[in-house]
Amino acid sequence: MLDCAIVGGGPAGLSAGLYATRGGLKNVVMYEMGMPGGQITQSSEIENYPGIFREDPSLTGMELMEPWPKQCMHFGLKHEMKEVKGISKDGDYFTINLGSEKVQSKTVIVATGSTPKRAGFKGEDKFLGRGVSTCATCDGFFYKDKEVAVLGGGDTALEEAIYLSNICSKVYVIHRRDKFRAAPPTVERVEKNPKIELILNASVDEVFGDAMGVSGVKVLFNDGKEPMELKVPGLFVFVGNNVNNGVLKQEDGNFLCEVNEQGQVVVDLNMKSSVAGLFVAGDLRIDAPKQVVCAASDGAIAGMQALHYIQENEEL
Amino acid sequence: MLDCAIVGGGPAGLSAGLYATRGGLKNVVMYEMGMPGGQITQSSEIENYPGIFREDPSLTGMELMEPWPKQCMHFGLKHEMKEVKGISKDGDYFTINLGSEKVQSKTVIVATGSTPKRAGFKGEDKFLGRGVSTCATCDGFFYKDKEVAVLGGGDTALEEAIYLSNICSKVYVIHRRDKFRAAPPTVERVEKNPKIELILNASVDEVFGDAMGVSGVKVLFNDGKEPMELKVPGLFVFVGNNVNNGVLKQEDGNFLCEVNEQGQVVVDLNMKSSVAGLFVAGDLRIDAPKQVVCAASDGAIAGMQALHYIQENEEL
Repeated sequence: MLDCAIVGGGPAGLSAGLYATRGGLKNVVMYEMGMPGGQITQSSEIENYPGIFREDPSLTGMELMEPWPKQCMHFGLKHEMKEVKGISKDGDYFTINLGSEKVQSKTVIVATGSTPKRAGFKGEDKFLGRGVSTCATCDGFFYKDKEVAVLGGGDTALEEAIYLSNICSKVYVIHRRDKFRAAPPTVERVEKNPKIELILNASVDEVFGDAMGVSGVKVLFNDGKEPMELKVPGLFVFVGNNVNNGVLKQEDGNFLCEVNEQGQVVVDLNMKSSVAGLFVAGDLRIDAPKQVVCAASDGAIAGMQALHYIQENEEL
Repeated sequence: MLDCAIVGGGPAGLSAGLYATRGGLKNVVMYEMGMPGGQITQSSEIENYPGIFREDPSLTGMELMEPWPKQCMHFGLKHEMKEVKGISKDGDYFTINLGSEKVQSKTVIVATGSTPKRAGFKGEDKFLGRGVSTCATCDGFFYKDKEVAVLGGGDTALEEAIYLSNICSKVYVIHRRDKFRAAPPTVERVEKNPKIELILNASVDEVFGDAMGVSGVKVLFNDGKEPMELKVPGLFVFVGNNVNNGVLKQEDGNFLCEVNEQGQVVVDLNMKSSVAGLFVAGDLRIDAPKQVVCAASDGAIAGMQALHYIQENEEL
């Protein structure tokens, strides 16, 4: 019987493990198939994790996350490279389905995050984290006073374009239709913004560049108009987000706990889900700010709350 | 006119400044009378800030916070060593009262924290952060398999004593009465806990030790019984907490925004208070976990939300 099972090994899962073990829980296992560290390890630069800052060259996501597993293991966190297929609760305890075996746990912290959807153009994977970005808050500042492009037409795409317009000299918004799905007030703000130029009925065919990163974007038009090249060092892609909530799906098709329309788990300030003993941390939850420091905080809170839950329910 | 006024220069205030300025806000001022860094700079050891870990010797709170101001200033945060007397909102804008002058701001982030009350025994200030602690989650692990004492009889004192019993070999709870103010189920758990020993009708007269830290606690009894010495290296003091909400008090005696019975500001997951444009981060808010990483996350969220608020309200 585990005291706490942690699903996911990014900043939220690691920080949950740190706080749960350092707080005195004995059997705490973090399930993560790959190397711990999470999505941020794909970033070539991070300069907004408070307290860790290197100007030139900037810290990479890999460098940022390198010390985390050691810190957690020091206090007793165990890492198992096993895939969690599902989580269920029967009576007081949770069952973690690992396919070939099943493990019981008193508490569970789910920190499986979310994954930005790929748009599918040439060079997208190659330049991800080196000119192709999925987060304006994270990477916008690296293009201060430069021109950038945004791909997408939903609320996130347009809100991020407005955000970028505060930092960058110009923002091209590339959208495959001539109308936006975003909320009308947001569309209006974009249309009135002198720094934003709309490129409609268009798609990205390719990003190109060299070892230094992206140098431009090739744009195709739906109506067969002559393709266009934008000489920009950055392309922000916002074409949707997959919430990694699969482990919470039950056999009957429902989720183990309450989720919203986007599939994000509903939590309170204590990272409690609607099911006692089940906590959720990081990008999987509602209102997730999608920042390393926020995921780490969520994990810390979930770790402390898991401990508190066990102390309050001594019969466990 | 400021874009954002930040009140308080601990981890929450600094992180708010980092995110607000890096996100593109131009006029962002952090008001903090002393050196930025906050309460944690008084701690002799910190090992649970995710990603920053040094085993021997442990990192001090001062060392942890040392790089933060530089990181924030790099993106344009301004620090003014002025005391904020009060904050009010008239129409769309906030007024920051600095005594000799008044400044207007579009948004405000309050991160003034809370201050643990002192019990008043000899040596309390001298050994604070070197054996006298006000946070079990922060410092409990430093006393792994050792004996410690807790001073206090409220919910926090007893919950923290239970927390410490998971880590320490023994926990003495010193309380000035023979009954506890804490919730009955908590009292029952303490009474049944084999690692907790109650010392009732008693008070702490003095903590003593040397340059290495605390070596013991002198306990006096109300009934004149012979004083007692506990040979413990750690004393946890939980005799109440002052929420630093003074800047939110209005002339009519009410608070600018909704607060709970303890005076903590009510916020949602986005650190929004009940007043548009006013955000609260760190130990001043409800359910504050009182951890550096959590305060930093709150600040990051508040900084992003302040930016978002200005973008959504272009008339500002």
